Amino acid sequence: MEPRREAVRDNRQMGEFELLAKLRERLGTPGPRVRLGSGDDAAVTAPSGATATSVDAVVDGVHFRRTAASPAQIGHKALATALSDLAAMGAEAGEAYVAIGLPEDLGEEDCLRLIDGMLHLAQGTGTTLAGGDVTRSPVLALAVTVVGHAAAAEDFVSRAGARPGDVLVLTGELGGASAGLKLLENPGLAAGLPGDVAEHLRRRQLEPQPRLASGRALAAAGARAMIDLSDGLGSDASHLAAASGVRLEINATALPVAAGLAAIAHGAGADPLRLASAGGEDYELLAALPPARLEEASTRVAATGEAKLSRIGRVVGGAGVEIRLPDGGLLPADGFDQLGQGRPGRATP
Amino acid sequence: MEPRREAVRDNRQMGEFELLAKLRERLGTPGPRVRLGSGDDAAVTAPSGATATSVDAVVDGVHFRRTAASPAQIGHKALATALSDLAAMGAEAGEAYVAIGLPEDLGEEDCLRLIDGMLHLAQGTGTTLAGGDVTRSPVLALAVTVVGHAAAAEDFVSRAGARPGDVLVLTGELGGASAGLKLLENPGLAAGLPGDVAEHLRRRQLEPQPRLASGRALAAAGARAMIDLSDGLGSDASHLAAASGVRLEINATALPVAAGLAAIAHGAGADPLRLASAGGEDYELLAALPPARLEEASTRVAATGEAKLSRIGRVVGGAGVEIRLPDGGLLPADGFDQLGQGRPGRATP
Repeated sequence: MEPRREAVRDNRQMGEFELLAKLRERLGTPGPRVRLGSGDDAAVTAPSGATATSVDAVVDGVHFRRTAASPAQIGHKALATALSDLAAMGAEAGEAYVAIGLPEDLGEEDCLRLIDGMLHLAQGTGTTLAGGDVTRSPVLALAVTVVGHAAAAEDFVSRAGARPGDVLVLTGELGGASAGLKLLENPGLAAGLPGDVAEHLRRRQLEPQPRLASGRALAAAGARAMIDLSDGLGSDASHLAAASGVRLEINATALPVAAGLAAIAHGAGADPLRLASAGGEDYELLAALPPARLEEASTRVAATGEAKLSRIGRVVGGAGVEIRLPDGGLLPADGFDQLGQGRPGRATP
Repeated sequence: MEPRREAVRDNRQMGEFELLAKLRERLGTPGPRVRLGSGDDAAVTAPSGATATSVDAVVDGVHFRRTAASPAQIGHKALATALSDLAAMGAEAGEAYVAIGLPEDLGEEDCLRLIDGMLHLAQGTGTTLAGGDVTRSPVLALAVTVVGHAAAAEDFVSRAGARPGDVLVLTGELGGASAGLKLLENPGLAAGLPGDVAEHLRRRQLEPQPRLASGRALAAAGARAMIDLSDGLGSDASHLAAASGVRLEINATALPVAAGLAAIAHGAGADPLRLASAGGEDYELLAALPPARLEEASTRVAATGEAKLSRIGRVVGGAGVEIRLPDGGLLPADGFDQLGQGRPGRATP
């Protein structure tokens, strides 16, 4: 369709080609598999084995708010959520392709800061930003496609291989991103909390860290099934259970919970275990392992320096997920639904 | 962030997971390189050589209008514009990954029709819809990442290889998409035009056809540089000239112009040659070839049944693009800028 020719406010001096040229200047050296980088009709790569590819979109007002997150944090989060899917495959991060929908009131400097936030994470994870598209949009939105690598297709860990008898393990801590969101929405909840604890919780929401090294460590330690926690433990565990055709028994008292979560939950009138198990966006990894490999997996994950591995339950025959409380009650296995319906608050039977 | 829990109108009965499940049911058999399709954290493929990857986003009000295009046409166009970049590399289409931003007023049936429009084109081009993401968005937007294949990285045709002495060739006809847009905006312009001609022009705008077979034919015939015309001949030719470090001399009288364009231009008070050379979205291919391969290229492109090949100019030393009129005047080498600035109406010196 015709370009929209009405006056624009902040980035009107900058056309698409000019912005793309400025973005390309920042990209740095492409990774070893990239033969032709950004700037042509397509990027050319020469994969040496199998690839894992995933796409994730984030939209202002749904996954972030421009009022709460800096442009660099928005760029970081858009790439981090996509890379988290590669972590859950046990993949080595390779290339990222980014479509950005730019609203007219986002200035040139903010566009570049957004890309810089993405590039900082890309460099830290060995990801090449190999291509992109920039277009006008009424709302800031980013769709990030990431490609990860492994020597062979069999080296990737799907959601489907868990077997009865496996142990369930989890990297890191739960609930930090949800608590961080509550803090951003209601800064008064930080009262009494040490400043570094509050800041850590906000960063869990605004700057999630994909567990790429942990994912590869778990794959190397024989993980049979793996998923990243974007929608919440209950919801994502249900996907793994369904894909594997098994039942997951999770011990609520074994769940590692972020420091400060209990205080935030208390202040917000929320149940801390519920916040930890149903709150999304922690981007930790849930994996099923043969029990004999548990110690090796813990050692390998600890060696990454990313997170500690916790044993949180086991795989049994059947279907569904239960998150069992000390009194024998069950937490509902629900989570975040991107289309905004939420899930009915049901306890898995 | 928390799901938005306010009431929604049309697709409120359908959560993300339910919609994704319905979408997956429609996907059919994955292509030969796909080892694990949609439904896990990432799709797994085993490329047999080199890959070309490109991402393209389309947004309601910028690249299409829901009032003018059917859901199936929107899905078609989103995939077609992405595949056109693979055509310009001479790639074989492989996999597509689709991020969809869904507004609340787009009903479930329309979501599925949109996917069906995409799937119809995917099946016709040998593309596997291998993954995706669906999220809430205030406006309908689609970002499509496509991966194409070739035996080796050197088999792809970039924008950068044109040399002085090469001939410039173009598939198909120009201006059809612009004329179709004018018809959609002002249906009265169809007066006096045969019905099938008007319909053909509207389809050029609403259902562009990526020239994948022609792109492979041109690559096989030794094309040294190639680009697809998304922004308009003048603008895209300038990209090819800049990437190759050459000057392109285009003969305006040799430009193949869509039937009905002259009548539409007359009715709209526009210059037909200007509409043909500056109007975007034709998604034809512009390539530079050694003169000795011209006949072979014409024969190979004709054999695809997609389009006829026209010789429209030549590559010389220097920089920039000229589109020369019979009277010796020059058409401005401008086009469509996705950030909506347009290009200043300048004649390339």
